[in-house]
Amino acid sequence: MKFRVTPRANAFYDMFAASAANLLVGVKILTELLGSSPEERAAIGDRMKVAEHASDEITHAIMNEVNSSFITPFDREDIYRLASSLDDVMDAMEAAVDLVVLYNIVELPAGLADQVEMLERAAEVTAEAMPRLKVMKNLREYWIEINRLENTGDAIYRRLLAKLYSGEYDALMVLKLKEVVDQLEAAADAFENVANTVESIAVKES
Amino acid sequence: MKFRVTPRANAFYDMFAASAANLLVGVKILTELLGSSPEERAAIGDRMKVAEHASDEITHAIMNEVNSSFITPFDREDIYRLASSLDDVMDAMEAAVDLVVLYNIVELPAGLADQVEMLERAAEVTAEAMPRLKVMKNLREYWIEINRLENTGDAIYRRLLAKLYSGEYDALMVLKLKEVVDQLEAAADAFENVANTVESIAVKES
Amino acid sequence: MKFRVTPRANAFYDMFAASAANLLVGVKILTELLGSSPEERAAIGDRMKVAEHASDEITHAIMNEVNSSFITPFDREDIYRLASSLDDVMDAMEAAVDLVVLYNIVELPAGLADQVEMLERAAEVTAEAMPRLKVMKNLREYWIEINRLENTGDAIYRRLLAKLYSGEYDALMVLKLKEVVDQLEAAADAFENVANTVESIAVKES
Repeated sequence: MKFRVTPRANAFYDMFAASAANLLVGVKILTELLGSSPEERAAIGDRMKVAEHASDEITHAIMNEVNSSFITPFDREDIYRLASSLDDVMDAMEAAVDLVVLYNIVELPAGLADQVEMLERAAEVTAEAMPRLKVMKNLREYWIEINRLENTGDAIYRRLLAKLYSGEYDALMVLKLKEVVDQLEAAADAFENVANTVESIAVKES
Repeated sequence: MKFRVTPRANAFYDMFAASAANLLVGVKILTELLGSSPEERAAIGDRMKVAEHASDEITHAIMNEVNSSFITPFDREDIYRLASSLDDVMDAMEAAVDLVVLYNIVELPAGLADQVEMLERAAEVTAEAMPRLKVMKNLREYWIEINRLENTGDAIYRRLLAKLYSGEYDALMVLKLKEVVDQLEAAADAFENVANTVESIAVKES
Repeated sequence: MKFRVTPRANAFYDMFAASAANLLVGVKILTELLGSSPEERAAIGDRMKVAEHASDEITHAIMNEVNSSFITPFDREDIYRLASSLDDVMDAMEAAVDLVVLYNIVELPAGLADQVEMLERAAEVTAEAMPRLKVMKNLREYWIEINRLENTGDAIYRRLLAKLYSGEYDALMVLKLKEVVDQLEAAADAFENVANTVESIAVKES
């Protein structure tokens, strides 16, 4: 992996780190949403769109870099998967916020906070792990933690679904809330795709 | 790209052009559906199935060609993505028509016409762009226009969802209509995947 | 394909065969669910989780093998697709069982038995075909049968949806049942992805 030290390669590591760091911004906005009053939410949604746009820019830059690079630090396929999985996390978080605003959902189920807390932890460990791609060190603990979080997330998701269908909400509200819950679950799945890609890259390097 | 002029390579360009041209057929049938009376819809659905079958044939031919070709005009991976994204557009449009017939939905929301109009425009620019793959010229304007259309489509989609959940429809009808609306949105997303693949091919060529 | 006789390559064939054989276990548990009384279902769900975990183990072993192998019997990309498509079948079947338990659905629509019967047949032909990957013989009949089953499955699925939306069920029950039906349809689609991957591998070999 002598390429790893070339400026080109460094550009990749910096962009992956930036993409993951931006997910921390997104998850913070998501946390604000939960504590917000309905009239504050449109503004929160606008800030989420700005964060989501920043992710698009970084992803596009990575794609251009990989397409125009003669050499890449690891397989192009893995770079694509890593960049698009990181972007998928942000897209899902942005969609969740947007749906809450669009459907004008006043009361958010308590369980949403558990989902967002899990996403916050996933964003933290992912942002910490990305810079370590450069040295390929201590990544194993990262993907083990992500898999643990994903299992916790599944349990939270199942509990939320059971609550949604318990009869406490009318059918239309179930539909609206389920779309929000599904987007947060999609964000958790995307974090797992990021970790799986990092694992497969690390295995090839070893 | 000396391979580009080989007969084999030409076969690819012709098949991509044929696949995109067939999407124009599909979107026309979709437009007819909107102006149709319920009793005409079964026949419209049958014609849509014929168009969808034609797309399957072309896609299968492309896959066989790429699998049996020693050289290909661009990465096999990109040829797969381009062929299957074009096919995804048709599958989603066919599913939308099929669901309207299956659920015997009498009144279609006005917003569907906005979605279909956007798909028609996307089909036109895609069909115009495919033949230009051969010369790799003037493709940039194509994917910029598709991205613009996709953003318009998102706004139309969000408005439709807000209307569906406004309380104007009963929950069962919301479920039925949402499936139709989601299929048309999936067709728009597939058009964007086609454009993204063309962009990534063009960047590698440049 | 001189690599095909190496021990490494044999490991792949054995793991694919094991993954497909495990799907037969899963579909048998699914069949039991249909004939079960509500109070038996939690135990059935637990056994399904065990089977799903076994699939995860095999899939992970295949991924590690392909990532750490210098030579592979066929394209790494195809090995990934084959392994993950086989795993997708099990994930979807497990999710279907889990949802029935989670939502405490007492009465299962008769049409579910048609879906499961089709999945059982698909699991049988897939488990028979996997060992033939090694000799690349008599695979054509396999993917033709899977495509036939997938078309039957689509018709069954459409009939089920029409029944769900017929007005016989209240909206909340429609939502619950549709999630189960969709998971079984997803399992059928995953079987088709397995067959498509085998076909593309076979075409490259020919």
